[in-house]
Amino acid sequence: MTAMPDFDTQSPAAVRAAIRSGAWRGYTNALARGHVQGNLMIVPAAYADDFAEYCRLNPQALPLIGRGEPGSPRIRAIAADLDLRTDVGGYMVFRDGELVDTPRDIAGEWREDLVAFVLGCSFSFEAVLQAHGVRLRHLDEGNVSAMYVTAVQTKPAGPFGGPLVVSMRALRAADAIRAITVSQHFPQFHGQPIHLGAPGLIGIEDLSQSYGGHGLTQLHEDELPVFWACGATAQMAALQARLPLCITHHKAHMVVTDLPVDDRLPA
Amino acid sequence: MTAMPDFDTQSPAAVRAAIRSGAWRGYTNALARGHVQGNLMIVPAAYADDFAEYCRLNPQALPLIGRGEPGSPRIRAIAADLDLRTDVGGYMVFRDGELVDTPRDIAGEWREDLVAFVLGCSFSFEAVLQAHGVRLRHLDEGNVSAMYVTAVQTKPAGPFGGPLVVSMRALRAADAIRAITVSQHFPQFHGQPIHLGAPGLIGIEDLSQSYGGHGLTQLHEDELPVFWACGATAQMAALQARLPLCITHHKAHMVVTDLPVDDRLPA
Repeated sequence: MTAMPDFDTQSPAAVRAAIRSGAWRGYTNALARGHVQGNLMIVPAAYADDFAEYCRLNPQALPLIGRGEPGSPRIRAIAADLDLRTDVGGYMVFRDGELVDTPRDIAGEWREDLVAFVLGCSFSFEAVLQAHGVRLRHLDEGNVSAMYVTAVQTKPAGPFGGPLVVSMRALRAADAIRAITVSQHFPQFHGQPIHLGAPGLIGIEDLSQSYGGHGLTQLHEDELPVFWACGATAQMAALQARLPLCITHHKAHMVVTDLPVDDRLPA
Repeated sequence: MTAMPDFDTQSPAAVRAAIRSGAWRGYTNALARGHVQGNLMIVPAAYADDFAEYCRLNPQALPLIGRGEPGSPRIRAIAADLDLRTDVGGYMVFRDGELVDTPRDIAGEWREDLVAFVLGCSFSFEAVLQAHGVRLRHLDEGNVSAMYVTAVQTKPAGPFGGPLVVSMRALRAADAIRAITVSQHFPQFHGQPIHLGAPGLIGIEDLSQSYGGHGLTQLHEDELPVFWACGATAQMAALQARLPLCITHHKAHMVVTDLPVDDRLPA
């Protein structure tokens, strides 16, 4: 149990300020739920156009919602005061395809040739699913969804390629059906699932062995595993590309934007 | 293998004429695929309003697409030349809740107090699913979908009530997801599924034991059973109601209407 935060947990600017000051060190999935959260991917400018093309070719995993100018840690179109060096609660720093550090800020790593990308994240659509009556047991239990590396290959672009990463939610059948009909309307948050049912069909041998080792992995008898493409796919691509430098968010510490989540379905 | 029919198998009027003359004695699922087919339910006028209310309360199983005037075997709004006494390839006649006959026409049974109802049928939406790229193995194999009586109870009206009957299609996961996103737009053909995955959760103990004993019941390893509410629910309700007389279509011999199937999805 974390102490009650003393900031406005539903204000994206307040959440970013709390992360920046160190007042909040937890995950972001329960915060600013009316606003879009995103995956972070930072690459040297020489690789930026290839990465943008990789996103375009794999839009379910990597729905692009913002791209910074070279050298700028800001993307004003998604949050006016955002500083990507300090406003994400955790980072992963990769060099030559190896994870070398997991700092709480990257001010010391920033370079004038870095380009930041923010990609849609399923945290945003979990709020949408709940608004439409879908029970998400992992949230009820204070957990996050589990992720898995699959045997499904993404479409490559430049040095980027590799396996699709998915997030899994344990849903009862009626909730799975509703989640499919709702999530299809939110392509910016990964859209409809890519698979449900037998995990082995997409190369997941053991649900208990999740990517990163966190998240709800145990199904109840009346639940199906439902799999969505996940932005963590970018991390696998960065590893495979063996970029000289690549920085991503860490686990469930996401970029909190000012973009409102419109959870309305088409009439 | 049936001999090649010598009528226009895609013209609803030609199909009805072939059934009326006895030239066609097969199922209707491969015929007039661009037009709506329906379940038939005929009850004495004294029960007609209760049955209409039963349909209204259970719209996924019993989507009403036409209702005749008392004593009339015609419903001109759905097919100008339709004669429900002769134009359905097979009938089931129930008296006091017992199946007493399965004739090829019901001219001899017709009475001035009978009211005919035509209810949406999943044959129509199978054509829609295929048009949207869903593989339906039972059709590829020249079979029909299997039906099952579930433990799910319908909402009762007057003497009508009882268990929900479902149709089952064996679908690979990607096809199941697509079938859900497509079928939700066709409430007149049962809409989205009511269940998928473990059959026992809706009271189906053994998939090999289908209602009526026909249809594809064996799943491949990469397939999920996907269950839609089925118009045969009306037959169970008629049995439970023990009406003095009730006439339905028999198995996969449906009412072929002139209503076009519009398979377009919302933009």
